Amino acid sequence: MDGYAIRSQATVTASPNSPVMFLVTGTIAAGDDPCVARTAGAHVEYDRDGGLQTCVEIMTGAIFPDEYDACVKVEDTVPVFEPTRRRGAHILVTRPVPPNANRRSAGSDILKGDVVVEKGDTIQLSHMLPLASLGLGAIPLERKPRVGIWSTGNEMVNGNGSTRDANGPYLTAAVRYMGLPAHFLGVLDDEPASLRRHVEMAAASGQYDVLLTSGGVSKGRFDHVRAAVDEMGGEAVFHGLSIRPGHPVLFAMLPGKGGKTAFFGLPGNPGAAAACFRFLTVPYLREFQGQARELPVLAKLLRRPGTSGEKHSCSANQDTDCFRHGILSTSAAGQLMVEASAEQSPSKLSPFKAANCWIHFRPESSATIPGPGGSGLVECYPASPTGGVLLSPNLCN
Amino acid sequence: MDGYAIRSQATVTASPNSPVMFLVTGTIAAGDDPCVARTAGAHVEYDRDGGLQTCVEIMTGAIFPDEYDACVKVEDTVPVFEPTRRRGAHILVTRPVPPNANRRSAGSDILKGDVVVEKGDTIQLSHMLPLASLGLGAIPLERKPRVGIWSTGNEMVNGNGSTRDANGPYLTAAVRYMGLPAHFLGVLDDEPASLRRHVEMAAASGQYDVLLTSGGVSKGRFDHVRAAVDEMGGEAVFHGLSIRPGHPVLFAMLPGKGGKTAFFGLPGNPGAAAACFRFLTVPYLREFQGQARELPVLAKLLRRPGTSGEKHSCSANQDTDCFRHGILSTSAAGQLMVEASAEQSPSKLSPFKAANCWIHFRPESSATIPGPGGSGLVECYPASPTGGVLLSPNLCN
Repeated sequence: MDGYAIRSQATVTASPNSPVMFLVTGTIAAGDDPCVARTAGAHVEYDRDGGLQTCVEIMTGAIFPDEYDACVKVEDTVPVFEPTRRRGAHILVTRPVPPNANRRSAGSDILKGDVVVEKGDTIQLSHMLPLASLGLGAIPLERKPRVGIWSTGNEMVNGNGSTRDANGPYLTAAVRYMGLPAHFLGVLDDEPASLRRHVEMAAASGQYDVLLTSGGVSKGRFDHVRAAVDEMGGEAVFHGLSIRPGHPVLFAMLPGKGGKTAFFGLPGNPGAAAACFRFLTVPYLREFQGQARELPVLAKLLRRPGTSGEKHSCSANQDTDCFRHGILSTSAAGQLMVEASAEQSPSKLSPFKAANCWIHFRPESSATIPGPGGSGLVECYPASPTGGVLLSPNLCN
Repeated sequence: MDGYAIRSQATVTASPNSPVMFLVTGTIAAGDDPCVARTAGAHVEYDRDGGLQTCVEIMTGAIFPDEYDACVKVEDTVPVFEPTRRRGAHILVTRPVPPNANRRSAGSDILKGDVVVEKGDTIQLSHMLPLASLGLGAIPLERKPRVGIWSTGNEMVNGNGSTRDANGPYLTAAVRYMGLPAHFLGVLDDEPASLRRHVEMAAASGQYDVLLTSGGVSKGRFDHVRAAVDEMGGEAVFHGLSIRPGHPVLFAMLPGKGGKTAFFGLPGNPGAAAACFRFLTVPYLREFQGQARELPVLAKLLRRPGTSGEKHSCSANQDTDCFRHGILSTSAAGQLMVEASAEQSPSKLSPFKAANCWIHFRPESSATIPGPGGSGLVECYPASPTGGVLLSPNLCN
């Protein structure tokens, strides 16, 4: 604090009627050597003979001189302007000042051995203050997975019709949202040889840890992704899951330079590609970086998807994990609430204008049944995968 | 859907006992011109004389040919392998197919005149799907404010003591977290002339819309920021607010190239600098970009800061707005809860390891009083200012 460094013992008897006078012998500002008080402003000669207690003016952030043990705030002192006391500035203290008052010990914030960031933590903005205050200009981070992304589909290549590639821009942005390098590698046509050549070359290059395609993983006559993976010696870990949307999804390990490359064959329907990315690819990318498993928040379900019995409803007796987009909000009482988007067709992108979360309906879970008999709570995840924005190893850049 | 494009009218009488046979005249895949069905696979000659209904094999994503009005899914058909029907492939349909079945109209997702992004919205990941599906490769954005940041204080310049600059790395990261360009311009010593020269040059350069310093805004002998602002002809909008922490904060407009430059003189104590940035600078930067005012979430207060009557407690009778960091979480019932960090001294950075929100205690607000007589709810803001990660005008990069 801005004030005067004193010996607290000298103020024990101080009172308005019997103040204690101090001789100000100099000033120590933040950044000054505490052994060399600035005296230029004070023009002091030490008044050793007068028997006065000495003090030093001290500024917030200055290092405390050894010979004093407390700081009296400037507003708790009375300056003395007596013309006879010509040898320097003097102050009066009118109340006892406790030992260590307004003085902070080095190391009182973060102690040796304290953990600031756990292994696996993602550096968040709030971490910057304690890390930088410790002088840690750089900290070791996990290597970031590098992601390559293609879209597939003749309809987006040859100009017949007006289908636009939404998956490519979306998936590229989503990976970057996680703070990871993403390269969009183009839209491939539905030719098996071309597909295989592109994916095989990228895996062999050693430039990518994860490769993504969207489209071409169903069982139709023009769905060539699985065949391309098989032909290049890839190992399918799963092809088809009991999830909606996204059931045709493929996950494989491809042979490549210096090890295997993970490959996600996402469905082509944009809503399905987004759901598979969020619930399959994001956990993989987190695990790759040593991050902890993401936990959902629980929210009260205001509206089931497709309550009127449409095909995108999630019945409680389903044997399928359902992923539904929706809007998460809080009530005036601080209760988390979620409303599934009314339109859940994976080809409809309009609801994504407003959706801010994904709801995970687990199979046959009574927890997802609203009203009596069920808790009415569902598991929600933010629509944008969190974390990683500050994943620069150099904190000062 | 993968299936066959047919005339639905022809299936009205279809049943397992009386199926309707169709001649497959070709294939239309996604991306194909619908007027030129691929016939290579089918080797078809039209069997006009046989009087059979024709159909075309069609793939998901393909454009529907005009002469048909519904798609029968491949799994709802029976292929015919009769050797006598040598002229092409045939299928049987055993159930009526409604008009428009499994067929989607162009424009059924987002209509002309629909608003995808409102003026003032921040582009979020979820916006990418509808925007990209419309073929919008670029959209007009507000200009991003450019921010220059200094720390001040001799103690971080001349090597006396071990005080590290935490504010510089923190504020730089915080601005970047908002998706804005931030330049850390260094640590300035407490010399009025040097301070003035640096700030004046930066304002005159026209390279910054907002300039930030931390430190040197109190009323002490070494607090030169206000004087520097006055001397360069800056106009103080406010200097000192009834807030804790951060009451010495200064906001001014500086003369500069092509208009005025906003200047925030933040306090030096890191907790106070962070609070002032979050509650004063962030709203300014949002307003600059035309973004809507940020709304707090309401959470149940589990612990008041400093319940034992310490100086960092926030009494309900205060006349001051208090900003306290804390931990926001959700209960198993989906209730938002917040616990103020036990240590609230603005010089203590250890609590920032765990803090994920700021709590705003308004003066004399009964809403902030827990238990009977008060709602027990407080206003919370995420510790990291949200938004802006994807503020790249080119969606495809």
